[in-house]
This record gives sequence, structure tokens and C-alpha cells, in this order.
Amino acid sequence: MYRNDGFRELNRQESLSRLAQVTVGRIVHTRDALPAVLPVNFLLEESGAVLLRTSASSELVRAVDGAVVAFEADEVDVAAQSGWSVVVTGSASVVTDPDEHERLVRTGPRSWVPWPVEVFVRIEPELVTGRELVGGRTCYGVSLPS
Amino acid sequence: MYRNDGFRELNRQESLSRLAQVTVGRIVHTRDALPAVLPVNFLLEESGAVLLRTSASSELVRAVDGAVVAFEADEVDVAAQSGWSVVVTGSASVVTDPDEHERLVRTGPRSWVPWPVEVFVRIEPELVTGRELVGGRTCYGVSLPS
Repeated sequence: MYRNDGFRELNRQESLSRLAQVTVGRIVHTRDALPAVLPVNFLLEESGAVLLRTSASSELVRAVDGAVVAFEADEVDVAAQSGWSVVVTGSASVVTDPDEHERLVRTGPRSWVPWPVEVFVRIEPELVTGRELVGGRTCYGVSLPS
Repeated sequence: MYRNDGFRELNRQESLSRLAQVTVGRIVHTRDALPAVLPVNFLLEESGAVLLRTSASSELVRAVDGAVVAFEADEVDVAAQSGWSVVVTGSASVVTDPDEHERLVRTGPRSWVPWPVEVFVRIEPELVTGRELVGGRTCYGVSLPS
């Protein structure tokens, strides 16, 4: 969260409520020492953890398993110049418990692309931040110098 | 770009063409040694550079000026399970030349939130990657094992 940039901060509960409204976000991580970002569909758990389902052999899994990552989702209305953005930051790890994996096969997020061997990746909600802009031009354009 | 994940790679020109269609993307960077991501509106220059306009005193500027960042934009159709994502990776720097700054005030991206003192940040397109999924479930669900 950046202060003094004209946006309203959302608290943890407001942030998670917005995150629960969408099904696609972006996992932000480091790959070969460079910043990397990849859109993925996800499921939000009650704890605020973000759950992804992907190929066991994917480079994404190798890049994020055991690392601290950020997961971002947003909704932006370009015409109204309004929107929100939520970021969950925390450790990502592959679900290795067989019973939990079995349960998530039934209850977890669905893959958009089926893979022969899938794994679930959970991002712990160690830090949850959000920001909202309600009608940027109309709200802020009047009283501030242009 | 991750291989073997069911997506079609876009070449540089295809990627920049898609990026030119949208006005909001996300700047991915490091903040206090943690991954950080922030949605911003932008303008794509002919060179493929990404141009942002923000407050001169913002924490974002301090975090990205002189750093290698990633800039991501995407369009996703959840119902069709299709979409594309493009990432421009390169050095970010504040435009310091007064003449160029003056020119960009007229021709650059518009701020959604006006600030007393604004700066332009340019991200050089050192690496441009993109990927596309055309109807994930329908295209890939037939021939591959589930």
C-alpha cells in the first residue's frame, strides 16, 4: 500500500471480501532473478489463503514453492476511472499431504487447462492490503490543482 | 513465459499489439524486499516502452526508479476461459529531461488522480513476452487426459 496517492486503503476484511468476488488474479514472483507475473484462476479459502491448481511439472511451481510471493486481483472501470486492487503477500507452498490433496481435487479451484499431474499451491495471507479509487476524476479533480 | 503449460506464446509484435489495446496494467517491482504489484493506467510508446504518470513524491517512484521491473496487462474472459497476458520487463526510470517532460505533459498518459507535481516513468521494453489461451476448456479438454 502506497500512502498519499489519492486512493482509499481497504482493511483486511474489505480486501478479502473484494477478492472473493473474482476468480482470476496474478501471481507475482521472482524468476531467474527478474520480476515475473502470471494470471491464474484461484479459489479464496476462508482463512484468506489463495489456492491455485496447476501442473506438477510447471516452471511456476518450481519458481514459487517455498518462496514469498504476492497475489494480486483487481477490478477497474476505465470509463469511470474507478476500481479496486487487493494484494495478498505470503509464503507459497505445494500441498503435499495426500488426504488434503484428495479433498482439494474435489473442492479446490478447477483448472482451465487439464494436466496429467496437478498440484495445489497455497499462498498464506501473511499480509493483505487493498486500495480503492471511487471515480478518480470526479472525486479528486475538483479540489486539487491539476 | 512458461513452457508446457497449454498456452500459446505470442511473439513480440503480437504482444505489443495486444498491449496497445488496453489502458490499465500492473507494475511489478520489489518493495522492502517483498514482491509488490500496483495497477496503473499507461501509454504504450512506438518503441514498446511503457509510460506511466504519477506523483513525484510517491513511494512507487522511489521503489522503481532505476530498477528492473515487470509491467503486465491482460484480458481474460472467465466464461470462455480464454484470454491473453503480456509482460514487458526492463529498467524503469523517471524522465528527467525538461523538454521531454514538457512534451509528455501534452502527449503522455493522463493521470486518474491529479497531483501537484507529476513525473513520467518509462519502462524500457528489454524483454517482451505474451501468452494466449483460446477457450481453455473446449480446446484442450478433449484430447488430453483429465
